[in-house]
Amino acid sequence: MQDFKLLVLGGDLRTAKMAESLARDGYETLAFATANSDDKSFVKKCQTLQEGVKKADFIILGLPCTRDDETIEAPFYQGEIRFSELFKLMDEGKYLIAGKVGEKVQMEAKEYGIHVIDYFEREELTVLNAIPTAEGAVEIAMRELPITIHGSKSLVLGFGRVGKLMAKTLSALGSFVTVAARKHEDLAWISAYSYKGVRFSNLFEALPLQDIIINTVPAKVLGRKELSCLKKDCLVIDLASKPGGVDFDAAKELGIKVIWALSLPGKVAPVTAGEIIKGTVINILQELGV
Amino acid sequence: MQDFKLLVLGGDLRTAKMAESLARDGYETLAFATANSDDKSFVKKCQTLQEGVKKADFIILGLPCTRDDETIEAPFYQGEIRFSELFKLMDEGKYLIAGKVGEKVQMEAKEYGIHVIDYFEREELTVLNAIPTAEGAVEIAMRELPITIHGSKSLVLGFGRVGKLMAKTLSALGSFVTVAARKHEDLAWISAYSYKGVRFSNLFEALPLQDIIINTVPAKVLGRKELSCLKKDCLVIDLASKPGGVDFDAAKELGIKVIWALSLPGKVAPVTAGEIIKGTVINILQELGV
Amino acid sequence: MQDFKLLVLGGDLRTAKMAESLARDGYETLAFATANSDDKSFVKKCQTLQEGVKKADFIILGLPCTRDDETIEAPFYQGEIRFSELFKLMDEGKYLIAGKVGEKVQMEAKEYGIHVIDYFEREELTVLNAIPTAEGAVEIAMRELPITIHGSKSLVLGFGRVGKLMAKTLSALGSFVTVAARKHEDLAWISAYSYKGVRFSNLFEALPLQDIIINTVPAKVLGRKELSCLKKDCLVIDLASKPGGVDFDAAKELGIKVIWALSLPGKVAPVTAGEIIKGTVINILQELGV
Amino acid sequence: MQDFKLLVLGGDLRTAKMAESLARDGYETLAFATANSDDKSFVKKCQTLQEGVKKADFIILGLPCTRDDETIEAPFYQGEIRFSELFKLMDEGKYLIAGKVGEKVQMEAKEYGIHVIDYFEREELTVLNAIPTAEGAVEIAMRELPITIHGSKSLVLGFGRVGKLMAKTLSALGSFVTVAARKHEDLAWISAYSYKGVRFSNLFEALPLQDIIINTVPAKVLGRKELSCLKKDCLVIDLASKPGGVDFDAAKELGIKVIWALSLPGKVAPVTAGEIIKGTVINILQELGV
Repeated sequence: MQDFKLLVLGGDLRTAKMAESLARDGYETLAFATANSDDKSFVKKCQTLQEGVKKADFIILGLPCTRDDETIEAPFYQGEIRFSELFKLMDEGKYLIAGKVGEKVQMEAKEYGIHVIDYFEREELTVLNAIPTAEGAVEIAMRELPITIHGSKSLVLGFGRVGKLMAKTLSALGSFVTVAARKHEDLAWISAYSYKGVRFSNLFEALPLQDIIINTVPAKVLGRKELSCLKKDCLVIDLASKPGGVDFDAAKELGIKVIWALSLPGKVAPVTAGEIIKGTVINILQELGV
Repeated sequence: MQDFKLLVLGGDLRTAKMAESLARDGYETLAFATANSDDKSFVKKCQTLQEGVKKADFIILGLPCTRDDETIEAPFYQGEIRFSELFKLMDEGKYLIAGKVGEKVQMEAKEYGIHVIDYFEREELTVLNAIPTAEGAVEIAMRELPITIHGSKSLVLGFGRVGKLMAKTLSALGSFVTVAARKHEDLAWISAYSYKGVRFSNLFEALPLQDIIINTVPAKVLGRKELSCLKKDCLVIDLASKPGGVDFDAAKELGIKVIWALSLPGKVAPVTAGEIIKGTVINILQELGV
Repeated sequence: MQDFKLLVLGGDLRTAKMAESLARDGYETLAFATANSDDKSFVKKCQTLQEGVKKADFIILGLPCTRDDETIEAPFYQGEIRFSELFKLMDEGKYLIAGKVGEKVQMEAKEYGIHVIDYFEREELTVLNAIPTAEGAVEIAMRELPITIHGSKSLVLGFGRVGKLMAKTLSALGSFVTVAARKHEDLAWISAYSYKGVRFSNLFEALPLQDIIINTVPAKVLGRKELSCLKKDCLVIDLASKPGGVDFDAAKELGIKVIWALSLPGKVAPVTAGEIIKGTVINILQELGV
Repeated sequence: MQDFKLLVLGGDLRTAKMAESLARDGYETLAFATANSDDKSFVKKCQTLQEGVKKADFIILGLPCTRDDETIEAPFYQGEIRFSELFKLMDEGKYLIAGKVGEKVQMEAKEYGIHVIDYFEREELTVLNAIPTAEGAVEIAMRELPITIHGSKSLVLGFGRVGKLMAKTLSALGSFVTVAARKHEDLAWISAYSYKGVRFSNLFEALPLQDIIINTVPAKVLGRKELSCLKKDCLVIDLASKPGGVDFDAAKELGIKVIWALSLPGKVAPVTAGEIIKGTVINILQELGV
């Protein structure tokens, strides 16, 4: 169907799964420096970087595509692939589709006339990643707590993407869910979805009742004062990226168990995470009109 | 608790219910030209407009607050109250809180130094109004269709506020729900909520399968071509404001039943609609720092 | 596929829809004294009762199959068909599949050596009929109440088939549902489904809080004393068959609105009701090994 | 409030939690040979068995109450308590409330004129235990699978207590749930709850599509033939008590991962499990009229 070729380059297990899935969907897919796949895949392995780059119309990297802004993340490859090396091989005007591309790589690409599209900045990927994040948090809560989610009292801090799906998932499992939000608009949605809403300014009313608290707000919302109000056996799961939303030292002193869970999608559901990236890459390709 | 007084002026049954509810909540509430209320209310009826306006710190009108941009909507009052009359009585710098205030009234208020706040433009009111809208649409579907919602196939066009709650409500009742949306982000949410998603560009795949179609998009999305694909006994409910999203003439010719349902909240659940306005008015008062 | 013929005899619109649906499913279906169907159906109309009975292997009647225990219910037929007439035409050992067969008809059939199977006594039909019953009750509540189901407080009396689906439907729409039951086992299920449970012995705690009460218990559970506790604008819907579960006189005196809603499936969703009967008839045929 | 005393005797951590919970609820509660509790409990520890038995009106044991039909299960007690010893100390006509009482203990109790009530045979306990069982199975599925439950295809074998809550929980998490059942009545309920139903006789249609299969039927339903149809990465969780419902040898040969999960409530949610037993004991006491 498609008359173009994709090269999947480097990446982790999710990236390899994505390559297989693209091939199964009918996209002509090459791979270099990816993980070996078990099943008889239609992905064509290239012998050299040059071979792959020359044949491919679009090059796809993993998530994150680099950890040092110089080399391509490729943990299953023995060698090292520098962005500069890749860009030199690519024809001007070609597209690189990658996750978490930093400014340095962006600028380097520009010098070579390469277009870079960062799929990690796509809203649909962020939304869909909130599903495994919420499930991962529930799995943690199930594992850590001596009570069932069913019948528990839970508090979700924040009503962004992860907050929305967190509340939905906990409620679906039979937890009595309260959501803390700042905006009247969010509180209206919270009420529409039949959760209990609380304004952050009234948080202290809600804190002492909870068995589980899940933070999604990237700001210090659970300081010593807030933590002091909690039941001793309340479990806190912090999903906020660094520096996190919890005063970890205070929690330790107070004997409150806090689990700081980052990057859940790739950890708890790598295949689903790979499918999500794949879907986003396909959306990007369609928008490029190919 | 509060050291200020409210005057509720004119309006329909919802407005009277709102006045009662404000009074029950502890707000000192006066009323003039409102509907009579059955229960022994704590609302104090004023004898004259002047009396009410002089005592009140905030004046609250109904929804819509006017139909002619000159007189205040007050169907339960025998006389006529002009905005100019009201503004003359009000002290400069006072607040008028009203629904659907047109530009003309806004400008007139400005001349008198009156602040006007339109509660109908508040996001939380729009969100909460989507609840009775969705319920009203379901009530129509239940009444019109010879099948149950449970087990039916339904298609919601658009995934804004009403579209979201429409899909939630139909799905909760056991309908197999497809939602049509344009943006990848919306399709991601649709999938997160376990509805079937379809892009508007692929709408023709979904149309022939449906028992119920609910349009929430204010654009002509169901033209003759689309309507021709429907099952003959498919029910179409159009929730889009004028000029509506359906080619009504074509539908008539094709024998497709279309119900154009506007302003549902006040019609199907006036008490709830009044409570929603009340909540929004309280939010406004709180933001004014009183 | 099947090498046998069905004769659908008499019945209301549901029965005619059922005949069409059986024919569409591939069953060779004859009809006599049924309603005319709009669509080009594969049902073969017979000219005489005798013609139909002679050709058919199984004879299917409507619901109820009779109102006087002597003649077959056939409101769309100008004449009268007596059971005795039918039985005389049928070969001994043949099957009559009908709804709500009384003892008198059963005995008469026995004299002629005819096997009678009452589909209305089948558990799967009773369960599935609870779906349109619950939806019909919700439709009534939506129509009668000035508030939305969403956010309302509702009480379901009884946790049998209808009670279970009533609670599910109301809860799905965002009502805060309490269910009254007698047995510990039922209260355990009520808690598993996250409704609030109350024992009938503690009913008086729950009564004054409700906006909607739905009775499914065929016993006088809402007497004068219970009704006196209700909010004045509480709506009572009685789904219990005669003599009903509500003291209607007391309710009238107290100004409590009560709606006694019987036989909802055929009224609110005749097509679905016909499909439910059809499914049950097919189960019966399969169990007869044909 | 109560003018009677309870003695909790032996048992595991759940039993100790139950004793604390009974005391918090206002029951005068003694304990002997139980686990030490952390919190400052109102449970009164007895020094000797004799002291406890003499003071108590009702004696409550853990779950299971014995493993050898001779001694009382008391893993936190260094000594050994024989049923004969207990019965000798008890007055004739007293009640022993215990879990999983075998025939031998029942007969021994009879000789001493002691009434034995087995709370494990109570329907409400079995129903409520299905909640932590279903949650425990979901936790296992989340941990083992590289995909999310959301969006997965799952098959539940059997629609008894655990099957019902299993389907509810998986569906709530966004899995596409099929339930296999034998009875038309069960299939009607399955359809009412909007799951896909399949008859056991048509199981082979459903098997190859699944990502997760959960068996609740205590019979060999997944033999070699059935297992051969599964996707290689399908996860099977067997909740059926011994001998289990899966041909484990065949599964091993075929490379299908099977997890046989028994007695989940006490393992995954001991506090909830203790509360469930407590609630059942209170029901028993109330039925005894105390």
